[in-house]
Amino acid sequence: MSSTYEFFYFESHGIVLTSRLLLSLGGFEWKDKYPKNWAEEKPTTPLGKLPVLTEQRADGSTFVLAESNAINRYLARKAGLFGGNEDEAALVDQFYESWNEIVTKRRPIRQIKDSNPEKYAEDYPNYIETIVKPILAKHEQHLAKSGSNYYVGDKISLVDVAASVVIATQINNSGNAEITEHTYPHLWQLYQKVSSLDAVKAEASRFSVKK
Amino acid sequence: MSSTYEFFYFESHGIVLTSRLLLSLGGFEWKDKYPKNWAEEKPTTPLGKLPVLTEQRADGSTFVLAESNAINRYLARKAGLFGGNEDEAALVDQFYESWNEIVTKRRPIRQIKDSNPEKYAEDYPNYIETIVKPILAKHEQHLAKSGSNYYVGDKISLVDVAASVVIATQINNSGNAEITEHTYPHLWQLYQKVSSLDAVKAEASRFSVKK
Repeated sequence: MSSTYEFFYFESHGIVLTSRLLLSLGGFEWKDKYPKNWAEEKPTTPLGKLPVLTEQRADGSTFVLAESNAINRYLARKAGLFGGNEDEAALVDQFYESWNEIVTKRRPIRQIKDSNPEKYAEDYPNYIETIVKPILAKHEQHLAKSGSNYYVGDKISLVDVAASVVIATQINNSGNAEITEHTYPHLWQLYQKVSSLDAVKAEASRFSVKK
Repeated sequence: MSSTYEFFYFESHGIVLTSRLLLSLGGFEWKDKYPKNWAEEKPTTPLGKLPVLTEQRADGSTFVLAESNAINRYLARKAGLFGGNEDEAALVDQFYESWNEIVTKRRPIRQIKDSNPEKYAEDYPNYIETIVKPILAKHEQHLAKSGSNYYVGDKISLVDVAASVVIATQINNSGNAEITEHTYPHLWQLYQKVSSLDAVKAEASRFSVKK
């Protein structure tokens, strides 16, 4: 018997669609857990927040891990979705961090969308032009050279999954930096390939995506 | 002959003090490289930005890696500064991500310090109370239980180094969440221990810290 996993998060995609996709794509035996009384449960988690992954091991021991990016890297390593060697793993991590930059720099701007719509109308296009587009251009260049149209080697890894999630939930939602077959053909192809996997379709459609 | 490393970044600590400390603590043969004409050099880097680590290997090949967090994880793995096994590595990553949250959520607030001092005067204490202090409390709890007063096992790892850097450059600079022997005794002890290492003292004093 191998490990079983419980993934503790709210009933939404939030920041964890990539984690749940890795659990499914990795073929893990796993189930979701949702908060029942979050105020009571909060202080019992490793860092006072969600997500939290709990692994029940065959030997009866339990391993608990917090922080979505740490969970994603842990699951990707276990699932063989972190490149074929340490060089490829480092490059997966490099491009994964680059997608994270797109996500973390978007957050403070999105937060003012309702409270300060004028500033948002100024900041968001500026974010797309100065942060997102230069990063996407470099990724497109890299994928054009990769041959397989995956980020490393000839199979899917953490960064391919994460890229598709950010494209689906954050980039193509915005209307400002759409990834299409014309704008970024290799990113588009990667996104199509990952999105068409049954495990991805099943998980992605479970909750609605917040625009 | 083993690899030699070139670390390409500006002549400042910026976001890379941890990377340079890992290079020194790991006993790597390495040197800094500074931009000569950044506008010309920028498009030649993997993601159009710095830092970039270039590794010259004994077999004559070259490995190039960007993104400071990816570089830090790569160097920490090579140097044996990533815990003693994959469980410890995952926990190192978990707490490292937690320190990164402190850093990335501070950035947009610091950016308005000069342009909007009134809003800064409101946002910064709020950030300290709602983001920083709850995280520090959880870390303090963890370190109190660790025995060695390192985050994992009984030796220094990536997260101990990163913690000390954030404490030195960002937390104790602010005056709002000082880590002292009274407020967070175990974090304080860790910080003292790491700061007193010769390699750390030499690197930390090379450039001034921006308040």
